[in-house]
Amino acid sequence: MSFSPLIRQLIESLRILPGVGQKTAQRMALQLLERDRNGAQRLAQALSQAMEGVGYCKSCRSLSESELCQICEDPRRDDSLLCVVEGPMDVYAVEHTGFRGRYFVLKGHLSPLDGLGPEAIGIPELLARIEAGQFSEVILATNPTVEGEATAHYIAQLLAGKGMVASRIAHGMPLGGELELVDGGTLAHALAGRRPINL
Amino acid sequence: MSFSPLIRQLIESLRILPGVGQKTAQRMALQLLERDRNGAQRLAQALSQAMEGVGYCKSCRSLSESELCQICEDPRRDDSLLCVVEGPMDVYAVEHTGFRGRYFVLKGHLSPLDGLGPEAIGIPELLARIEAGQFSEVILATNPTVEGEATAHYIAQLLAGKGMVASRIAHGMPLGGELELVDGGTLAHALAGRRPINL
Ligand SMILES: [Zn+2]
Ligand SMILES: [Zn+2]
Repeated sequence: MSFSPLIRQLIESLRILPGVGQKTAQRMALQLLERDRNGAQRLAQALSQAMEGVGYCKSCRSLSESELCQICEDPRRDDSLLCVVEGPMDVYAVEHTGFRGRYFVLKGHLSPLDGLGPEAIGIPELLARIEAGQFSEVILATNPTVEGEATAHYIAQLLAGKGMVASRIAHGMPLGGELELVDGGTLAHALAGRRPINL
Repeated sequence: MSFSPLIRQLIESLRILPGVGQKTAQRMALQLLERDRNGAQRLAQALSQAMEGVGYCKSCRSLSESELCQICEDPRRDDSLLCVVEGPMDVYAVEHTGFRGRYFVLKGHLSPLDGLGPEAIGIPELLARIEAGQFSEVILATNPTVEGEATAHYIAQLLAGKGMVASRIAHGMPLGGELELVDGGTLAHALAGRRPINL
């Protein structure tokens, strides 16, 4: 016996969730049908509303429902510090450490083999953001991977001679790790231990 | 910084999925927004369509999109065997063993402490199904838990003297386990080793 078409379609669709394989998707689908149809309908609506309503902040390019995100709109943040990260999830991770400067969110990291150069990841927009601001320090908080390091180094070179410090978060984190997966304490130490990049 | 309202709503809604806590829900929400908005929209639609379109088979009370499910409509199934289970998920588990009789799906098991008596779990409908059929054996495949055993024993008593065998799946499975979680081989052995219930 196979699942009926609507159940099969639901199982297939649930597999787009990170970490959800065939078995888990089956269990989720049947449990929702059996135990929480109202909850499932609310989830359907929340998914649809979020996918339509959540865009990108035009200043920092983080996820935002309004033109400017909460952070960019907050006048109490430190305008002298800019933290550059690889993705929106990293903003939440860095916020958790108590950082209260500004952000810029790249679209990932430089990856020449995949054809992802400076334009593809938003470097021109980053430079425009920096020109429009009054930052004394740009903290390069890309992931401590080979590509993240290369991206940080590339940006540091672009900022040389522009009258601001380009710093790199300390290697308190395991090499090859991902910012969004590390615990808050480790990330806080890494932020606190940041050093200027020597070109 | 907190998540924006639509993202927060999405995270909350994702937590209704079995096994998904706060951290996992956050990760799912942000990954969908970042990497697969079309997939998320398809998931929203699949959820909604399944919750509206999937009902219960009027004969076996399993999940079905049509009045009668695939199994009940299939003329090649063995009409002399009825397998009684606690929920729709168990039907898929038993099917997997190669069983090709008919089914009846209870709404769980008897649970006097929760006020769940015979009517609440569908015993009258089970008896009506048995009256309307021509079964020589009713296999009681409720879970091997205290409540599942009590439910099987209760049904066996109701069937005494009705000219059919009431059998119980063998205890090849760990006591306290759940049918839907056991591997197919173990469940197949348990089915094959079923014995009449001696009252
Ligand atoms: Zn912003
Ligand atoms: Zn049916």
